[in-house]
Amino acid sequence: MGERIDRERSQARIEHDVETLAGPDYTLSQSAICRYAYTDAYRATLAYFTRELEAIGFAVWHDPVGTLVASNVAPGAPAFGVGSHCDSNRNGGKYDGTLGVCTALEVCRLAAEAGDGLPLRLISFLEEEGSGFGQMLLGSRIMLQRVSEQELRETIRDEHGVSFWEAAEAAGYEPARWRESIRALDGLTGWTEVHIEQGRVLQDTGTRLGIVEAIVGYIHGDLHFSGRADHAGATPMGFRLDAAIPAAETIVELERLAGELGGGVVGTTGEIAVSPQLINVIPGAVRVSLDLRSTSGLHVELRDRIVAFARERGAARGVGVEYAPRQELPVQPMDEGVVAALVESARESGETYRTMPSGAAHDTQCVASLRPGAMVFVPCLDGLSHTPLEQADCADAALAAEVVYCAIRARAA
Amino acid sequence: MGERIDRERSQARIEHDVETLAGPDYTLSQSAICRYAYTDAYRATLAYFTRELEAIGFAVWHDPVGTLVASNVAPGAPAFGVGSHCDSNRNGGKYDGTLGVCTALEVCRLAAEAGDGLPLRLISFLEEEGSGFGQMLLGSRIMLQRVSEQELRETIRDEHGVSFWEAAEAAGYEPARWRESIRALDGLTGWTEVHIEQGRVLQDTGTRLGIVEAIVGYIHGDLHFSGRADHAGATPMGFRLDAAIPAAETIVELERLAGELGGGVVGTTGEIAVSPQLINVIPGAVRVSLDLRSTSGLHVELRDRIVAFARERGAARGVGVEYAPRQELPVQPMDEGVVAALVESARESGETYRTMPSGAAHDTQCVASLRPGAMVFVPCLDGLSHTPLEQADCADAALAAEVVYCAIRARAA
Repeated sequence: MGERIDRERSQARIEHDVETLAGPDYTLSQSAICRYAYTDAYRATLAYFTRELEAIGFAVWHDPVGTLVASNVAPGAPAFGVGSHCDSNRNGGKYDGTLGVCTALEVCRLAAEAGDGLPLRLISFLEEEGSGFGQMLLGSRIMLQRVSEQELRETIRDEHGVSFWEAAEAAGYEPARWRESIRALDGLTGWTEVHIEQGRVLQDTGTRLGIVEAIVGYIHGDLHFSGRADHAGATPMGFRLDAAIPAAETIVELERLAGELGGGVVGTTGEIAVSPQLINVIPGAVRVSLDLRSTSGLHVELRDRIVAFARERGAARGVGVEYAPRQELPVQPMDEGVVAALVESARESGETYRTMPSGAAHDTQCVASLRPGAMVFVPCLDGLSHTPLEQADCADAALAAEVVYCAIRARAA
Repeated sequence: MGERIDRERSQARIEHDVETLAGPDYTLSQSAICRYAYTDAYRATLAYFTRELEAIGFAVWHDPVGTLVASNVAPGAPAFGVGSHCDSNRNGGKYDGTLGVCTALEVCRLAAEAGDGLPLRLISFLEEEGSGFGQMLLGSRIMLQRVSEQELRETIRDEHGVSFWEAAEAAGYEPARWRESIRALDGLTGWTEVHIEQGRVLQDTGTRLGIVEAIVGYIHGDLHFSGRADHAGATPMGFRLDAAIPAAETIVELERLAGELGGGVVGTTGEIAVSPQLINVIPGAVRVSLDLRSTSGLHVELRDRIVAFARERGAARGVGVEYAPRQELPVQPMDEGVVAALVESARESGETYRTMPSGAAHDTQCVASLRPGAMVFVPCLDGLSHTPLEQADCADAALAAEVVYCAIRARAA
C-alpha cells in the first residue's frame, strides 16, 4: 500500500504538459481553450505530443483522418492502449480530454523510465467534442465504422460549410482510406482513458479516483403537451386546458420515479418551452425535454413510465400529450477484467477511490465495444467542464497515471 | 318580456358600422385591424363616428388629447355615458373596442329615433390597447389624472421614439391642457361600456349577455428559483439542486390553491423560463410568472400563500426562491345601481344573461372609480381577441344596445 512511483515528479510533468498546452500557440481563443481538428492550434498540440513521445522512444503516426497513434512496439503488435482526446470545446478549459492524453503520456514515460518493456499504445482521438464539425465522438466513431461515407463526404460540415472530407484532404489526410482507421485497435489487449469526471460526486464525497464500470445509455426526447391558450383573466379555473399543469406534474413525477427505480438511473427536464409565453395567457402548449440515463437499462423503463404518466395526466385534463424521441444510445459496460485490475491497483495506492458510472459520453464507449476497456475519473471543481473555469488537480492525474500504469503492469505479468 | 326595439334593424346598423370600419381606410394592416392614435386610420374612424353622430343631432368634440366625446345635451349637462375605445391592436380584430363604440352609437340612434329626450354622452377613449405608445388605458388614465405630465412629456413614447406629447401636438391637439380631459365626466349620471367578453364563459354556457359586477384586481409578478446547473448525466439524483422541481411543484400548487380559495380567483403561470435551457443540463435557474386575479381581493391571499409555498419547497431542497412583483391593480367594483338596472333590463329582454366579473382591464375601471359605471359583455368565438380571428355576433350587440338603452331609460324615469 502506498506510492509506487514518484508521484511528485509525475505531477510536475503532467502540470508542465497541461500548462504548456494552455498557452497561446495551442488555442484559437484568447479567453478559453478552443481547439478543433485541422486548425493550427490542434496541429501544434499533436506536434507537442509527438515530440514528447518520440523523446521516450515511441513511434508516432496518424490514422487516415488524423487521430494520433503512438507505440513502443510495431503497429498492430499486442499492446495496452491509453489515451483520450485533445480537441477542446469552443469555450473549453484546459483539462477536458487534454488531461487524459497528458496522463497517458505520463504512463508511457513511467514505462520508458522503468525500462520494463511494457508494450503500450497511446491514442489521441480526433474531434471528440464535436466543436469543429458538430458531431460528438467523431474520430472514435470513424474508427468503429459508426459513420457512413456519405456522411463524411456530404452531411458532416464545419461552420463554413466545408465538408469533413474536404477539410481532411486539405489538412493532408486521406479520408478515402477512413475505414482503415480501425487498424489502430489491432492487437490492442486493453484500453484505459483517464478523464475529468464532469460531475461533482468525487469532489462532494472527497474521493480522488473514480473507476468507471459502465458508460450510461441515454434517451433524449421531448414531451409535447397541447392545451388551449386562453386569456388568464377572462377564463375561470374550470374553463381551462392549461398545458403547464400536466407538464409540471410530469416534471415532479420524473424525479420521484427516478428515485423509486433507483440503481443510479437519472432523469432530467433541462428544457421547458411554453407557448405563447405571455404572463397573461394560459399556456397553450408546453414542451418538456427528457434526458434519461442509466448503466442498468432502467432508463428505458423510466421513459415508458414517465410517458405513460404524462399521457394519463394529460387525458385527465383534456390536454394532448405526444412523445417525440430525439436520440438513444445503448449502455456500454466496461470490461470486468480491466475494471478489476484498476480497482486492485487503486486499492494498492492507499488513496480514496470508488467505482462509478460515467454519465457522459466518451471515446471509450466506442473502443470498449471492441476491446476490453475502462476509464478512470479524476475530480474536477464543482463538476464544471466545457468552460474556462474548469479546474482539476494534477496530483490526482499523477495518481491516476500510477494506478493505470501499475494495473497494466499487473495484467501483463 | 321580449323585444323592446327592432333588434333586426339595430343588428343591421351595427353590422354595417363594424364592417365599414373593417375596410382598408380604417386599418394600417392588410391582414388585421391595426389602428392606433393619431394615425390616418384612427382619424378616419373618428370621422366616421362624427358623421354618424352628427346625423342624429349629437354635437361632437375631442378632449385635449384626442378622446372623442359626443352628446345630445350641452357639455357638462347631466347625461348617461356610453362608449368604449376604437383603437385596435397591431394584430387586432374588428370587434375589440370598436363593437362597443358601434353599440353605444346604436343606443344614441335608438334614443334619437324614439325622440324621448334621453340625455346621452358617447365617449370613445384614446389608446386603450397601448399599441401606439405601449401604455394600456392611456386615454382613460389621462382623464382620471392617473399619469404624470413628466410621463406624457418624456417617458411615454411610440416605437419611433416620439413622445406622446410631441405626437399629440403634431396631430393638432393640446396636451398642455391634458388635465382638462376629466371634464368629459362632468355631469355624467352613469356609464356603461359594451365589450366582447375576451373569454369563453358566455359561449361555453350558451349565454348571450354578461353583466359585469366588478373588474378584477390583479397581481403580476415572478418567482425566481435558483438551483445549480449540473451535468444531467454525471450528477446522480441525490447530488442535485434542480430549480425546475420546486418550480413545477409551485405551478401545480397554484391551480390547487386557486380551486381551494374559490370565489372566482384565478392564477396563471403563463411564462416559464429555464436557464441554461439545455437538454443535458439540470435547470440552474427557473423563472415562473404569476398572474393572479379576483374581484374579491382573494388574489392577494393567493399571492401570499403561493409565495410561501414556493419558499418552503425551495428551502426543503436548497433551492433559493425570490418573489419579484411587477404590477398590481386594485379591484374595481361596478355600481350596484347601474348593475341592477342592467340586470332588470336583461331579464325583461327574455334572453339569456348572467352576472360575471371582467377578468380583463377596461377603460370602465377608470370611469367607474369616479362615476356610477358598469359593463355589458357579448360572447366572442372561443374567447379569442387581439387577433384577426376575433368573431362576435352583431345580433348579440343589438341585444346589448336594447338592454343598455332600456336600462338608461328606466333609470331616467
